[in-house]
Amino acid sequence: MAEVGIDGMEIRTGKLQLDLAETFAPAQGDDPEKYTKGLGLFTSSFPDVYEDIVTMAANASRRLLDRKDISLEDIGRIDVATESAFDKSKPVSTYVAGCLEQVFEGDLHHANKGERKFACVAGTQALDDAYNWIRAGRNRGRKALVIATDTALYARDDAGEATQGAGAVAMVVDENPDLVTFSDQQGFGSADETDFLKPNQQFPSVDGKRSMQVYLARMREAMEDFERNGGDTHPDNFALIPFHTPFPGMVRRAAALGFRHCIRGNEVEEEVAEEIGRQPRQEEFDSHEAYLDAQKEYTETLTETDQYTDWYKQTIEPTLAISRYVGNWYTGSVHIARAAGMQEALDEGRDLTGKQLLIGSYGSGAQAEIHAETIQSGWEDEISQLNIDEQMEQRRDISFAEYERIHDAHNHDENREMDPLTTPDNEFVFDGWGRMGERKYTYVE
Amino acid sequence: MAEVGIDGMEIRTGKLQLDLAETFAPAQGDDPEKYTKGLGLFTSSFPDVYEDIVTMAANASRRLLDRKDISLEDIGRIDVATESAFDKSKPVSTYVAGCLEQVFEGDLHHANKGERKFACVAGTQALDDAYNWIRAGRNRGRKALVIATDTALYARDDAGEATQGAGAVAMVVDENPDLVTFSDQQGFGSADETDFLKPNQQFPSVDGKRSMQVYLARMREAMEDFERNGGDTHPDNFALIPFHTPFPGMVRRAAALGFRHCIRGNEVEEEVAEEIGRQPRQEEFDSHEAYLDAQKEYTETLTETDQYTDWYKQTIEPTLAISRYVGNWYTGSVHIARAAGMQEALDEGRDLTGKQLLIGSYGSGAQAEIHAETIQSGWEDEISQLNIDEQMEQRRDISFAEYERIHDAHNHDENREMDPLTTPDNEFVFDGWGRMGERKYTYVE
Repeated sequence: MAEVGIDGMEIRTGKLQLDLAETFAPAQGDDPEKYTKGLGLFTSSFPDVYEDIVTMAANASRRLLDRKDISLEDIGRIDVATESAFDKSKPVSTYVAGCLEQVFEGDLHHANKGERKFACVAGTQALDDAYNWIRAGRNRGRKALVIATDTALYARDDAGEATQGAGAVAMVVDENPDLVTFSDQQGFGSADETDFLKPNQQFPSVDGKRSMQVYLARMREAMEDFERNGGDTHPDNFALIPFHTPFPGMVRRAAALGFRHCIRGNEVEEEVAEEIGRQPRQEEFDSHEAYLDAQKEYTETLTETDQYTDWYKQTIEPTLAISRYVGNWYTGSVHIARAAGMQEALDEGRDLTGKQLLIGSYGSGAQAEIHAETIQSGWEDEISQLNIDEQMEQRRDISFAEYERIHDAHNHDENREMDPLTTPDNEFVFDGWGRMGERKYTYVE
Repeated sequence: MAEVGIDGMEIRTGKLQLDLAETFAPAQGDDPEKYTKGLGLFTSSFPDVYEDIVTMAANASRRLLDRKDISLEDIGRIDVATESAFDKSKPVSTYVAGCLEQVFEGDLHHANKGERKFACVAGTQALDDAYNWIRAGRNRGRKALVIATDTALYARDDAGEATQGAGAVAMVVDENPDLVTFSDQQGFGSADETDFLKPNQQFPSVDGKRSMQVYLARMREAMEDFERNGGDTHPDNFALIPFHTPFPGMVRRAAALGFRHCIRGNEVEEEVAEEIGRQPRQEEFDSHEAYLDAQKEYTETLTETDQYTDWYKQTIEPTLAISRYVGNWYTGSVHIARAAGMQEALDEGRDLTGKQLLIGSYGSGAQAEIHAETIQSGWEDEISQLNIDEQMEQRRDISFAEYERIHDAHNHDENREMDPLTTPDNEFVFDGWGRMGERKYTYVE
């Protein structure tokens, strides 16, 4: 049976940027390092007034189809993952299809369109559905277009405000793909949690501390499930480990716990034991609290070892390179982490063909999913085509006053009118409302 | 490879009923036949104040797991299809899982939970995902729990008000199922339409006339796609043809067009030709309008032939038996049509084992999907376990004044408090709000 995975991807960022150190921190009266060091974030991406989850998704998809010479008839399935939907019934994928039909020949009338929602993990779930569809032999030789698109806005002055971001990742899933193949094995860790919600509201209610605990707990469960299911998690076996990245500081914490978990009982634990001792084991302690304290202390010491810092620098750090400058893209986040890591590896001349990725996806509410990917020989060509760095450079840097206005413009309860801050150029734009209250789109040359 | 399909199902209706002829029509100053004859609807289902999409889903699922002796560890996937979600991020499936974990031993921490949205077609899409997951060999021997749950409310005095309904259908998808297996073949007809929307609102904006045209156009496209893909559509080859049923009158129209399409060029057309002539062919007409007029006239005459009326009575009419008394359940609608048809067949002593179903699913926005199912030998046992008739009889009939209050109670913009009209009995109930604005649930003995 043919291998199945991601044949190509495109990334589209919102066209505005907010500088967290230079613009946001002074306006909030904060030390810039709260953002740059604490969260690991430098700038956020925002959509201009004519951009939204549909335009970003359609623009990324258009470039992808163009570049890979894919016709509309080649596509048998379009799934959009988002937690920023603006309609409770009509899926974003139908709007994206309508956009693509404006500029490509043919139509998408026989493509199965859908929408998935589960906080930030839905992008990976949509990839899984596409993979299963092809492996089940139901694709009739056609490809799936999977898109993760979000405008991750928080209420003004919410603790999450500095982690905002907006962008889309479009991916083609196909047999014998150019970029990566997926492992059959998956690991899931999932529970009914209330760490992050949007109950009938656009902006989230977040319990930040709880959310971090839930992220780590579910990720650990997923890792154990993956291992039980025959998945390999030895830290040396992965070229890159892209995690869901609400902000890079979160991944720093997850990486330390993940490394500790994955070296438990293998030769890496023995190696570092000479320096810092073996990991504490539950049975060696009278109380669970004492065990947790010892574990915390061990983990802190572990992150100072050469073994850890080398591993972190090689497998984790590169995956954060885009995220630091665009913020949280929710469903797209783990997919820009994958792209960032591979882009860094390309720049450094690392040969990734045949190497493994371990992917840690996560959605609040809450569920973590672990799966592995094998990098294919076409990866260099694919990754070198990404123009996200160029897009980031071209973003318009906004003042705090402009930020306040653009936030209101995207707030469904405000919908304030404002002039765009940039000029559309060969792209899909939102251009007003239809008679049923629907958003309308057009392609601007 | 093992066949995959629906191993069992349960249906849960809202516990209140509004009599359209006796209560709604007089209050609206309408002729009752507008509803009973025109729409084909007699009563609607509504949730009591302690019911919602989660309680109906969890109550249906609990009975299903109990009855089929399925433990939580047997479930590898829970997908909920709905267009009545009350959270933009956290999926309904996590709430349902939380409910089930309250009453069953074990947990669902390693089950992949998700949510699908595409108007009324998402229930079938979620079944497809579950099917593909098992056929792709990723289920590790586990089953999928697929739930379609909706509270289909319209704004007061909207034209859709009489078609309201509320209920859930829970289905287990498994290898070697007891009820039906799915065909590999599928047909899709899909376009970016604005017939029915909920743009940042709970109640839909509907263009009723357009919505009927789009339903028929997409269904026809899907049928053609299904045929191109090797699917059989000869009307004599199906024991039952369950369609998405926004109201039975819609299916009456779709059935006539479907029958005309499916007899085109085969011996059934020849048989009826002796009486009413052959179908008009495009090439025989000077203008498209003249062709359409002739087609319309032919269709009307066709529905008066014995061939048509016998076929309709046998394959379509039985599928409407539940819908007439519960209204539109959106994602669940086509699945109660399947159940109704099989229940009627059981009552009449028809032997369905090995017979085919042709399923016509539809979601506004818009997409139709056609697939076939083969009825399995366990169908009689499964269908005889359904207690939907009993549930319908036990519903509390509400006055118009009560209807007005319960509509407000379920309106997110009103959220009026009111006392329940029924008493919970061995079921999950909504019992208030958590600190993050989340809905909370408990099991009442």
